[in-house]
Amino acid sequence: MTGEFPHLTGTGEVHMVDVGAKAETERSATAEAIVSMSPGVASRLFSGDLPKGDALASVRLAGIMGAKRTPDLVPLCHPISLTGVAIEVERHERGARIEATAQTVGRTGVEMEAMTAVMAAALALYDMVKGLERGVTIEAVALLEKRGGRTGTWRRA
Amino acid sequence: MTGEFPHLTGTGEVHMVDVGAKAETERSATAEAIVSMSPGVASRLFSGDLPKGDALASVRLAGIMGAKRTPDLVPLCHPISLTGVAIEVERHERGARIEATAQTVGRTGVEMEAMTAVMAAALALYDMVKGLERGVTIEAVALLEKRGGRTGTWRRA
Amino acid sequence: MTGEFPHLTGTGEVHMVDVGAKAETERSATAEAIVSMSPGVASRLFSGDLPKGDALASVRLAGIMGAKRTPDLVPLCHPISLTGVAIEVERHERGARIEATAQTVGRTGVEMEAMTAVMAAALALYDMVKGLERGVTIEAVALLEKRGGRTGTWRRA
Amino acid sequence: MTGEFPHLTGTGEVHMVDVGAKAETERSATAEAIVSMSPGVASRLFSGDLPKGDALASVRLAGIMGAKRTPDLVPLCHPISLTGVAIEVERHERGARIEATAQTVGRTGVEMEAMTAVMAAALALYDMVKGLERGVTIEAVALLEKRGGRTGTWRRA
Amino acid sequence: MTGEFPHLTGTGEVHMVDVGAKAETERSATAEAIVSMSPGVASRLFSGDLPKGDALASVRLAGIMGAKRTPDLVPLCHPISLTGVAIEVERHERGARIEATAQTVGRTGVEMEAMTAVMAAALALYDMVKGLERGVTIEAVALLEKRGGRTGTWRRA
Amino acid sequence: MTGEFPHLTGTGEVHMVDVGAKAETERSATAEAIVSMSPGVASRLFSGDLPKGDALASVRLAGIMGAKRTPDLVPLCHPISLTGVAIEVERHERGARIEATAQTVGRTGVEMEAMTAVMAAALALYDMVKGLERGVTIEAVALLEKRGGRTGTWRRA
Repeated sequence: MTGEFPHLTGTGEVHMVDVGAKAETERSATAEAIVSMSPGVASRLFSGDLPKGDALASVRLAGIMGAKRTPDLVPLCHPISLTGVAIEVERHERGARIEATAQTVGRTGVEMEAMTAVMAAALALYDMVKGLERGVTIEAVALLEKRGGRTGTWRRA
Repeated sequence: MTGEFPHLTGTGEVHMVDVGAKAETERSATAEAIVSMSPGVASRLFSGDLPKGDALASVRLAGIMGAKRTPDLVPLCHPISLTGVAIEVERHERGARIEATAQTVGRTGVEMEAMTAVMAAALALYDMVKGLERGVTIEAVALLEKRGGRTGTWRRA
Repeated sequence: MTGEFPHLTGTGEVHMVDVGAKAETERSATAEAIVSMSPGVASRLFSGDLPKGDALASVRLAGIMGAKRTPDLVPLCHPISLTGVAIEVERHERGARIEATAQTVGRTGVEMEAMTAVMAAALALYDMVKGLERGVTIEAVALLEKRGGRTGTWRRA
Repeated sequence: MTGEFPHLTGTGEVHMVDVGAKAETERSATAEAIVSMSPGVASRLFSGDLPKGDALASVRLAGIMGAKRTPDLVPLCHPISLTGVAIEVERHERGARIEATAQTVGRTGVEMEAMTAVMAAALALYDMVKGLERGVTIEAVALLEKRGGRTGTWRRA
Repeated sequence: MTGEFPHLTGTGEVHMVDVGAKAETERSATAEAIVSMSPGVASRLFSGDLPKGDALASVRLAGIMGAKRTPDLVPLCHPISLTGVAIEVERHERGARIEATAQTVGRTGVEMEAMTAVMAAALALYDMVKGLERGVTIEAVALLEKRGGRTGTWRRA
Repeated sequence: MTGEFPHLTGTGEVHMVDVGAKAETERSATAEAIVSMSPGVASRLFSGDLPKGDALASVRLAGIMGAKRTPDLVPLCHPISLTGVAIEVERHERGARIEATAQTVGRTGVEMEAMTAVMAAALALYDMVKGLERGVTIEAVALLEKRGGRTGTWRRA
């Protein structure tokens, strides 16, 4: 497959930013993902009528456990003592919307933890419905809000 | 945050599908993700000019290592002996396009491995550029193709 | 705490048994655990009325994911490509009974996978009810049945 | 196997409790497990005469490493910086008794870490003796003591 | 620290080699490491007289468990179903010699598994003695032998 | 292979040292490894001309991710919230020199994290060149410096 891509160059240098001098403060971040699917499959998802079982519990647990795996998945992420993770799943006009909030008291933010949580939840949801519908898409994975730390609160416009 | 979501119900029942009776065949799957960002940040990404270092190598390795973590992340996925994983990153009109292909010789497909690989690669890319631009979005994470197994080849329309 | 225990001696020698010469056959194992608690807490567990949420889904997913972690937890266990894992939870006169079945097609049995699955499920169940009742006990974690391999089927008397 | 269990219902909602507002205090917890086996196998275990090698070292290390894996195994557990783990194994009238103590300075207790440690140690012990005796049972996995945090010291009656 | 190193360039391209077309054959590999230390510390190590406890059991188990973690640690390694791992530790004129053998029946060799096992064992040994002696060095981590696969047997000269 | 080693004895006792009473201070440690290879292979490594791709990025990322895995690999290591990890690779007269620095603000040092990082980086480098040259050796893995904590700064003579 390599042939179809333009040649890319890089320095091969990567760094995990040193956060030792930052203060420990309360930090949180919220991210969302939309998983688009046909209305019929969405209905079966939200009524608990799927062959693999209860998708919503699986999605929430996958999101919570995914948040804890962030430093394993994102190479330059610092290991963080998460103080809380919440995952919500709701019906959305295009299928389902997942929202993940991660919290910590630490030296670095939890933006990547919220993004990883929502991605892991979306993958688990995809896994639950892929036997019913080909072509389900995970759309618009994005940060909604970030609180705490030097830069304070940021909210998506 | 719970209050803003409708009450969801489910059975709490989940199952890992038994694939013991399936034949071992060659299987592959390819997935993609678009990471949208401003043209200026995309240019810095593809010219290797990012504060955290060489994003493209980090993205590829995160994708490959993410594929290997699929059974840890997706609760009902079977552990699989992957025979190959390839990750490509290319410039896209909205920022960057990532493509991941996973391969195995096994009793179950590698669709979730390709999806997890592309998600992990997209998260690593997001992590490399998030200090330069707020609001970067991971879009259109979707399966492109699936080969092998009982259902044969499927290609996205 | 060391002082209160008799002095133990050992050789320090440990081995992972070589199973390379064994044939690949279908194998399964089933294990159970009883989690004893007061009838009131058991009722809340089985009616989904717990502060931390839906215990039964959490218990099942913890069991399935725990089975996949067996080689990480049990030092001398071989890594195995599980082809299926099922976890059931039912009301029991002393509280709850969990049953885990693990399946593979491989060179070594899945007894430890079934035992690890039921243990992980029992720990997750304990975690869900521990805020309501101190003193919950995990009892009688034991193998019920083992099928396949050189020694054939074994059933607990 | 599903057919033999009554139908279970649940909400599919699970939450990792937010502990960000709790103070960091010294906390510890101690748990035990009894592993019952025949006197002959217990004698071989405690004299280091087992086919797989030195069970006692394996059991202790499995317990210590298991404690560190608690957030991977117990879905709603917070990741914790353990400051110490100790595992003891002693001869017991029904076979062997394992005791695990976990310690931290943190915002949440280490009850699940002690329970996971003792369970992982018991699984490793089971794995060492299962080739000699079918039907070994892990009994009475229970918390003995919990210190620190808002609720102070609790001891099993 | 970057300043003291010459500028390095690279393409950022990495690939996990596709081994799907290779035949499943029996493969093994053996690696060794020398851990150099003063004769006094080596004597305490081999007589079991170390503050942290029984180093030799810890070293063997760390090697076995490390072998199972190879695909997590070495980015481009394939996940492999190891059929056996053996770790030996012996007195050496410069301190201790560790030897690790990994075995599989698979499509790719276990050279990296043997190297990772011996490295993990050496790190565990270092951890056990570092409180007694500063400056302990892990020397000469190298492959001794490789059997099976297309290239057959290779032995270090 | 067991036959060629003298009989080793041990107590089977291992302990994770309790560090709960230590103060949280800034700590760092730096370790190095030399990977010896022929000049021709070293030239291809540093000019990015290897079959598996960009070795230098892979080596750095493997080192950073390896540092985060230290408590999984070294049985008696405490889990630590690393605040920074840096990996450098440079041309050396015998092949390549890798240097790893780990940093934390915590109750225990990061010596094992630096050693594990440099070992994981060396393994990844070995994996990149092993197809070109048999007999590559990882030499002289050693601590260079340790700062912080009760014992203050130590530098290799």
